[in-house]
Amino acid sequence: MAMTRVKRPTLADLDLSTGKRTRLHRLLYTFGPANGTLMFLPIDQGLEHGPRDFFVNPAAKDPEFQLRLAKEGNFTGIVFQIGIAEKYMNKFAGEVPLVLKLNGKTEIPGDTQPLSPCIASVEDAVRLGADAVGYTLYVGSPQQTEDFLQFRKVREDADRYGMPIIVWAYPRGEAIDKKGGRDSLYAVDYAARVANELGADIVKINVPKIDAQKDQAAPAPYRTMQPSREEATRMVVESAGKALVLFSGGEMQGEGDVIDKARIAMDAGATGLIFGRNVWQRPFDEALKLSQEIHQMLKDYGA
Amino acid sequence: MAMTRVKRPTLADLDLSTGKRTRLHRLLYTFGPANGTLMFLPIDQGLEHGPRDFFVNPAAKDPEFQLRLAKEGNFTGIVFQIGIAEKYMNKFAGEVPLVLKLNGKTEIPGDTQPLSPCIASVEDAVRLGADAVGYTLYVGSPQQTEDFLQFRKVREDADRYGMPIIVWAYPRGEAIDKKGGRDSLYAVDYAARVANELGADIVKINVPKIDAQKDQAAPAPYRTMQPSREEATRMVVESAGKALVLFSGGEMQGEGDVIDKARIAMDAGATGLIFGRNVWQRPFDEALKLSQEIHQMLKDYGA
Amino acid sequence: MAMTRVKRPTLADLDLSTGKRTRLHRLLYTFGPANGTLMFLPIDQGLEHGPRDFFVNPAAKDPEFQLRLAKEGNFTGIVFQIGIAEKYMNKFAGEVPLVLKLNGKTEIPGDTQPLSPCIASVEDAVRLGADAVGYTLYVGSPQQTEDFLQFRKVREDADRYGMPIIVWAYPRGEAIDKKGGRDSLYAVDYAARVANELGADIVKINVPKIDAQKDQAAPAPYRTMQPSREEATRMVVESAGKALVLFSGGEMQGEGDVIDKARIAMDAGATGLIFGRNVWQRPFDEALKLSQEIHQMLKDYGA
Amino acid sequence: MAMTRVKRPTLADLDLSTGKRTRLHRLLYTFGPANGTLMFLPIDQGLEHGPRDFFVNPAAKDPEFQLRLAKEGNFTGIVFQIGIAEKYMNKFAGEVPLVLKLNGKTEIPGDTQPLSPCIASVEDAVRLGADAVGYTLYVGSPQQTEDFLQFRKVREDADRYGMPIIVWAYPRGEAIDKKGGRDSLYAVDYAARVANELGADIVKINVPKIDAQKDQAAPAPYRTMQPSREEATRMVVESAGKALVLFSGGEMQGEGDVIDKARIAMDAGATGLIFGRNVWQRPFDEALKLSQEIHQMLKDYGA
Amino acid sequence: MAMTRVKRPTLADLDLSTGKRTRLHRLLYTFGPANGTLMFLPIDQGLEHGPRDFFVNPAAKDPEFQLRLAKEGNFTGIVFQIGIAEKYMNKFAGEVPLVLKLNGKTEIPGDTQPLSPCIASVEDAVRLGADAVGYTLYVGSPQQTEDFLQFRKVREDADRYGMPIIVWAYPRGEAIDKKGGRDSLYAVDYAARVANELGADIVKINVPKIDAQKDQAAPAPYRTMQPSREEATRMVVESAGKALVLFSGGEMQGEGDVIDKARIAMDAGATGLIFGRNVWQRPFDEALKLSQEIHQMLKDYGA
Repeated sequence: MAMTRVKRPTLADLDLSTGKRTRLHRLLYTFGPANGTLMFLPIDQGLEHGPRDFFVNPAAKDPEFQLRLAKEGNFTGIVFQIGIAEKYMNKFAGEVPLVLKLNGKTEIPGDTQPLSPCIASVEDAVRLGADAVGYTLYVGSPQQTEDFLQFRKVREDADRYGMPIIVWAYPRGEAIDKKGGRDSLYAVDYAARVANELGADIVKINVPKIDAQKDQAAPAPYRTMQPSREEATRMVVESAGKALVLFSGGEMQGEGDVIDKARIAMDAGATGLIFGRNVWQRPFDEALKLSQEIHQMLKDYGA
Repeated sequence: MAMTRVKRPTLADLDLSTGKRTRLHRLLYTFGPANGTLMFLPIDQGLEHGPRDFFVNPAAKDPEFQLRLAKEGNFTGIVFQIGIAEKYMNKFAGEVPLVLKLNGKTEIPGDTQPLSPCIASVEDAVRLGADAVGYTLYVGSPQQTEDFLQFRKVREDADRYGMPIIVWAYPRGEAIDKKGGRDSLYAVDYAARVANELGADIVKINVPKIDAQKDQAAPAPYRTMQPSREEATRMVVESAGKALVLFSGGEMQGEGDVIDKARIAMDAGATGLIFGRNVWQRPFDEALKLSQEIHQMLKDYGA
Repeated sequence: MAMTRVKRPTLADLDLSTGKRTRLHRLLYTFGPANGTLMFLPIDQGLEHGPRDFFVNPAAKDPEFQLRLAKEGNFTGIVFQIGIAEKYMNKFAGEVPLVLKLNGKTEIPGDTQPLSPCIASVEDAVRLGADAVGYTLYVGSPQQTEDFLQFRKVREDADRYGMPIIVWAYPRGEAIDKKGGRDSLYAVDYAARVANELGADIVKINVPKIDAQKDQAAPAPYRTMQPSREEATRMVVESAGKALVLFSGGEMQGEGDVIDKARIAMDAGATGLIFGRNVWQRPFDEALKLSQEIHQMLKDYGA
Repeated sequence: MAMTRVKRPTLADLDLSTGKRTRLHRLLYTFGPANGTLMFLPIDQGLEHGPRDFFVNPAAKDPEFQLRLAKEGNFTGIVFQIGIAEKYMNKFAGEVPLVLKLNGKTEIPGDTQPLSPCIASVEDAVRLGADAVGYTLYVGSPQQTEDFLQFRKVREDADRYGMPIIVWAYPRGEAIDKKGGRDSLYAVDYAARVANELGADIVKINVPKIDAQKDQAAPAPYRTMQPSREEATRMVVESAGKALVLFSGGEMQGEGDVIDKARIAMDAGATGLIFGRNVWQRPFDEALKLSQEIHQMLKDYGA
Repeated sequence: MAMTRVKRPTLADLDLSTGKRTRLHRLLYTFGPANGTLMFLPIDQGLEHGPRDFFVNPAAKDPEFQLRLAKEGNFTGIVFQIGIAEKYMNKFAGEVPLVLKLNGKTEIPGDTQPLSPCIASVEDAVRLGADAVGYTLYVGSPQQTEDFLQFRKVREDADRYGMPIIVWAYPRGEAIDKKGGRDSLYAVDYAARVANELGADIVKINVPKIDAQKDQAAPAPYRTMQPSREEATRMVVESAGKALVLFSGGEMQGEGDVIDKARIAMDAGATGLIFGRNVWQRPFDEALKLSQEIHQMLKDYGA
């Protein structure tokens, strides 16, 4: 496996409709780093995990915290569910691009057969002036059939309205657990390709974790490959093909670790980052400072 | 956790469409206390529990009992299912605002995997001159996917018609029972946030109960927190965000307890109360007297 | 529990649309007793039980038997499924009002989780000149969710076309069996209220049976109440509220018993009777004579 | 049980729409025996059983074999699934009436909970110039609810387009097996009535088999009745009411047995026959000769 | 079983609509061998198996590899899922005909009850200028009902737009495994007929494998037949009737074996080949050379 840096697709490489190109251009070159990289602030944890994610930084329970952070920290855009978008975006309209997350669920009923139902539509996104929609696809779930069918409707609507789709490509469910787990290279690599095949414009994935023990349960040749973290990250970026790649941050880490993770991602050919808890679980000033550091770092990857 | 009183959102804080604002204005400032607080009389127990709830006060079996009470007791509005609304509201049209409850079920098949099917639509509510619709969301139910999808349709229709939505945010089902139960802070807190994220304008929740024993089954940090009843109530109001909060009364209690419960709720930042059995399970004159006491108490919370 | 006779709602008490009022007026004051009471002849047993119900009187296998009986016996109307209505009504059009039963099923797959699928629509009823539609609601069934959703569509269509709905409110399914059974006061009382809440114009129920043994499984206070048959019948009529009540006859009984049962029902405030096997399982002349006796009896209840 | 021959309904007895009457007239009086009897050639076994049914007469694998047989043998019509109809009918258009079978399945997943999904629509039948549609109804199947709902759509479309419906009324599934089996009088008798109640114009059933042993599992009074084959056949024809009855042939038998079976069916009041494997599993000349014998026999039953 | 070569249907034999004939003519006579044979390059393994199929030839991970191969190797067309088609086809538009695969799934949740959900529509195919659509039908799956219903929609849309349908007729699922397995003659033979009956224009099947041991589980007479590979191949072509047959290549084999397999298929009456991994798992030059050899071989089968 060669360590040549994967070239990020540019707008010129993508055969986009006028609507998708207009909105992606706004995200890539008008807001955020504005150099062809992306830096999103997601705030869907209130639905996915409940209010407990806010306890470490209670101020973040109010979505205005994240909105102010997105504006002052010059993020590319913010990710909200429909209820939050409808109640809180108005004051920041035009100043902070919106990614409307279309589906979501609570963590309560467990995760063996996950499916994330759509609680909003592409039309809602158009109505609210959003520049992209988000969709969580649970690749490999026993409910994958329903997921694919639900995504198809989103993809068709997005094609009709020229709305870019960001797919949260999450390997999940009991079958994934049996084949190496959700963070295995097999799982993340497959998920990246699936998003590309199904019609994602942008795909959000996690950095794969190599675990020799767990990987023995994966299909060949994954069960015996032992790529470095860097190699594995490049592989999954390649599998996403012409879908632009965002890496997520996961649980909160030290500031240095966050920047390191971000560099590995960008070096591997990612187009950007989508860091939530790692940013907004810090007090406002610290969060702003970290955002500026990420900004600075992304300058190296402009195109 | 500070005990500062949570500020109730006012109409000016909410970015409401003209239709929603018109109807909410009517509920907040024209009927009931008319000072920005809410006081609803729900009568959906005939469907949810069956006629047995009327045995303690047989006169209440006839919905005209509650309609007269709502009118003479100057409630903000009355909550009915479609069949009752269609058969009984006409005589009180314009005098008692209607909240049309859109979904409901009987208690007969049990409560491990609850889902409350829609037996009426937002269009029915418009046709009947209602000022809001009600929807019971069973947060955490194994049928949560179906619930979210059903709610989405209601939310979309309500957006289209400018109809405010009151969400009965009820944590329910076998998974909730395993994680501390339906009245735990974890459950109520999560439910309040979910209603906010999904698009509720108003959310009806119960006052959480702290139970050190049961709470050990909840996720961290809920399993070790021991907030006072007042603190816990403030927390869930905060989690509802810009969704106005109504607290429900639950089973019938002594008159003094009812007023105490109401004060705790209002002090915590609730916008109003929705008390059913606690009111109409009393003889008409007693019920009217209690209604007036609640009215009097709500004067302290006007805005 | 007082034994005062429950007052039957009159057309003037009901806030009906012009279409519903026109059709109900025809049923209450033009056909049958024509004095505000109702007397229906149902013939849906061929689908529900199969041809075996006709073996005691083979002539009744031909729907013309019941049509002639409905005409000569001056019934308010006849109840048919779509296939029978389409093939047999034409010759009697305008002479015998039609109640089109919209849903039905065979008894073959068993009765633990019943649901009766709609095999015809309100539009079919309009097309065939029917004056009402019939719908079997299995209150408490594990498939209650599907039942409520299916009924909603019927209710909406009936509202649109001004078509009265008769709900066969049948408590059924494994949960009902565990709580006292389908004929218990708890079950019938609950079913009557549910029909009222969901939007029935007329509800068909059975006379409840008090069984001290079985009732112990019902919720309080039903498990300890021991009302007389007359009291129990009044209670369920009251629970139906402004939905007019029809009592059904059930399996064939002696002629005297039939009249007795009918009197108890009418004394309790019912608006009418819907007797099938008790009538058409007799030879034509006997069936006609019994019909005339019921007619005579209903004269006492005119309004 | 009297042995009087059941009178077959004539077109004049049936209150048919102009479209249904036109098409049925064509089937009854223009093609085939053209004397009010019916004689169909079904070829849906390739889907229901797979190619193995053709091994005894490989020439029959090509649908042109049956089309030539239908034309030269002067059948009333041929029964095809959509794929065969679209690919093979064109050359015989107008010469051999088409019955488009709307639903079908393979035998592979087993038969305990059967449902036959619609793979074509009434509109397809109209487009292809068909004179009737066929629908397999699995009476008593655990999936009966889905079956009834699917059939309703077919019935509605057939009403809209004036297209006659032939119902293959097949008792099937684990519940039927427990109550005497698919060929028991109970099962066939019930199925015939169900088809009539649901809206069949023509019903295809099998001749019931009396089996004292198995019938003990059927409901009373079937479990003790011991009618002759002739009596049982008359009973099921009566239960079909105004739905015209076709008897099927089942597996291949000797030529004499085929004619005997056909006579019993017609004597019992059937309107016609639908013999497939019994005809086309023979070499073309033998098949043609048997067809002519059936033709000759049907002359005795003209009207 | 005679070994006479099965005559391939020609366009003149097929009663095609103008749209289907236009598109099939393009595939049969304008692109690829252009002599009435077909030679497709499928690339749906990234979704069906994940990126692991590309590890033997990493260059093939980029769909441009296959597009260049299809163009330079003069294939009849290329098979893509919607996401790949939308992102990669534009540059090759008009030069490489597109077969849009409409459904697909990952291998992760296992294969006992497979169903391949539609992630694109016939309208997508029209919009993208495709000349055919592909559909995977899992014949015999416990989810066969859903599969047939889903296919019906595709067939109807394809009829409406004049778009040819290629059915991947794959026997799959636990019932197939119990009756001899997915490659048994019973399974493949049945699948070929099912595709023909349901409305395929072209059917893709595998060459059946005779396995005396496994075949004992198949229904008679398959369990005792021992046809040669050639005979078995002819049989399944015959069962496909007027649906043109493509044979697939399966896993990669030696070059000679590939050509041998292709000859057996074509001798048996197939219209063409659809070889994926056998071609693109080789380096570009080798793949191109093999493509040319297949081309050469297909010259013998022109019409």
